[in-house]
Amino acid sequence: VPDGIGLPAVNIDLLGNEPAIIIGLMSGTSADGIDAAVMQVGGVSRPPAWKLLAHLAAPWSTALRGAILGACRPDAPLQHICALDVLLGDEFARVAQYAATAAGLPMSAVTAIASHGQTVWHQPEPMEIGGGRAAGTVQLGEPAVIAARTGRVVVADFRPADMAVGGQGAPLVPFADCLLFADIKETRVVQNIGGIANATLLPAGGALQDVVAFDSGPGNMVMDALALRCTDGRLACDLDGAIAASGQADAALLAELLEHPYFARRPPKSTGREQFGGEYADAVYSRAVELGLSSADLLATAAALTIETIGRAYSDFFAGFGRIDTVILGGGGARNPVLVAGLRARLAPARVTSHVEFGMPDEAKEAAAFALLGYSTLRGIASNVPSATGAARPAVLGKICLPPL
Amino acid sequence: VPDGIGLPAVNIDLLGNEPAIIIGLMSGTSADGIDAAVMQVGGVSRPPAWKLLAHLAAPWSTALRGAILGACRPDAPLQHICALDVLLGDEFARVAQYAATAAGLPMSAVTAIASHGQTVWHQPEPMEIGGGRAAGTVQLGEPAVIAARTGRVVVADFRPADMAVGGQGAPLVPFADCLLFADIKETRVVQNIGGIANATLLPAGGALQDVVAFDSGPGNMVMDALALRCTDGRLACDLDGAIAASGQADAALLAELLEHPYFARRPPKSTGREQFGGEYADAVYSRAVELGLSSADLLATAAALTIETIGRAYSDFFAGFGRIDTVILGGGGARNPVLVAGLRARLAPARVTSHVEFGMPDEAKEAAAFALLGYSTLRGIASNVPSATGAARPAVLGKICLPPL
Repeated sequence: VPDGIGLPAVNIDLLGNEPAIIIGLMSGTSADGIDAAVMQVGGVSRPPAWKLLAHLAAPWSTALRGAILGACRPDAPLQHICALDVLLGDEFARVAQYAATAAGLPMSAVTAIASHGQTVWHQPEPMEIGGGRAAGTVQLGEPAVIAARTGRVVVADFRPADMAVGGQGAPLVPFADCLLFADIKETRVVQNIGGIANATLLPAGGALQDVVAFDSGPGNMVMDALALRCTDGRLACDLDGAIAASGQADAALLAELLEHPYFARRPPKSTGREQFGGEYADAVYSRAVELGLSSADLLATAAALTIETIGRAYSDFFAGFGRIDTVILGGGGARNPVLVAGLRARLAPARVTSHVEFGMPDEAKEAAAFALLGYSTLRGIASNVPSATGAARPAVLGKICLPPL
Repeated sequence: VPDGIGLPAVNIDLLGNEPAIIIGLMSGTSADGIDAAVMQVGGVSRPPAWKLLAHLAAPWSTALRGAILGACRPDAPLQHICALDVLLGDEFARVAQYAATAAGLPMSAVTAIASHGQTVWHQPEPMEIGGGRAAGTVQLGEPAVIAARTGRVVVADFRPADMAVGGQGAPLVPFADCLLFADIKETRVVQNIGGIANATLLPAGGALQDVVAFDSGPGNMVMDALALRCTDGRLACDLDGAIAASGQADAALLAELLEHPYFARRPPKSTGREQFGGEYADAVYSRAVELGLSSADLLATAAALTIETIGRAYSDFFAGFGRIDTVILGGGGARNPVLVAGLRARLAPARVTSHVEFGMPDEAKEAAAFALLGYSTLRGIASNVPSATGAARPAVLGKICLPPL
């Protein structure tokens, strides 16, 4: 089965020749809520044609968000993880139903649901246990529950298959970025700024094997955590970068933060709350207090950290690919004027634009990406990008769960 | 797709008309090691013809067994669970390779691997979390790892799909018992005595929907835990019931133990280490010390508890199905002369026999059952027994994981 973008497939195809309707579901490391995208994908063209039919975001309830963030700890208790897994499955199913409705479709018209789930633990570096060593990743939102509530085939749990062939299990969106945004003439970077910032280089005319992608470091995660601390818990984020805009980045603190060994590490690499979460933000906050920084200067420094680590990542790791023509910003950070202006200055002469120019609003992109990954799994197509994840070979990602009768 | 035993199927079939070779893998609640069975299943007959090609048991290393038992706690830390999941996947894959070799087959001749995994938590009763309530179950042994190591399609994680339609996620072996042992003329009970004891009633001429199955209570779990305590850790079990045989069951303690509310509860019901594990055995041990019982009398009482709870379960819950002709004993308890003699007396006039009479050695049965469950999943056939698990409807169990390229 040729896939048209350079990766092979196993001899299994659970889809016919008609375009499939796939609902992609995603909740990011920030645990804000579930993003859903209804995608029409496929038919006979390779790479498959796609069209976004609807998308929506549904926030977690305060209680559930609390339970999720409480579960993002190395010592989160098994019993809680286990119950939360099922409860989140219910929520993903509910949002899938909303999404079908938003697209004007009965659930019976949906071919499949592709759910990333909610990451509560991602540990690509092996740890010792039971006389051996193993890495691991945990995404919650039991697919059997989603299948039972919706009556649809569900594809879920995409990361372990990449890690099983030596990859870091992230980033996975580059496959979708390539299908959605690669161009024959332009070299493009898709720059997502969620809790973590990740960059995908799509060389002009490049096939999937030429894609380079990795997490550059924190996106909004450090800024959000510091906004919470600086306002004694009143603000969960520095909306529109208003506080940061009123301050000045502190060169000394920024220089210290840039010393974090993650930034100099060569890709493939990925990171998350484990490295840049609450403990890290606490340490940054304490250091700012020692240095006598105002809240505004501290938040400006945190914004500068995101901008500068992205800029350095391009200089250090995309240098061999020639001029970057266009940077396509996405994620919550793409709506932060301080970050956008900072990146435009830092990345010039590249044109900095947004996903919506390409028919894919950035807020729909990650969920749409998982719809494309689910589609690929049901076609038996490998969808990890080994150069991005570090995997030794292509893998068909995800587990397929059939609905009850 | 008719399945010939009365349950419907979804319109998905990943198998052709040739018989499939499926390796079933299982590690029970006792966490002794991995049992593997290589089954030839299927072709065009319904119910499918089967043949056991090979079977083996591979013990866990001491370090891994320690890590597994350490993970069977409500507060087992997420990070350990996550790494152990991957590590056990490696072990299941290694044992699948041994099993193929034992059957004289290259791995490429194997159609699929069906892995139950290692249960570390099973909680069919909902608990409160995040403003909601949910039950849950956790089996370790990442199927993506098994697929990567073996290059085969893997079906795994069978229990959540039954729980998603309101079932207890157990017992799942009744589907296989029906395929393997149901008879047109005889009413049979398949009585497994592992850590937990479970009974499956196969009414004469019965189709799958007539099957009744449930966990009667402890099998070897309490006896094993008490043997360990009575010998200050020198004996992991009372081999051949030698200690119990030298004692007398204490009627007073037995009567107290029979008061446990689990025994009187009507099926569907299932239980495990959560109810009859270490804490329970500690309490029984303390009570025996209070009563001044010898080790021999305590172990005889524990054996009597298993025998009597099985006997009462038949009287209480199989009464409406007429005479039981044959009881087919299986599990480690079937090799304990004290249990076998006790059950023969307690269940007379039923004929008490063993699995081997039917071409299926009892030590291969649970692994073979998961091979049959995996086969069914790949055919899109529902394989829970709603009357046994309490599920509201038939469900196709398990998740399908495709191999990398």
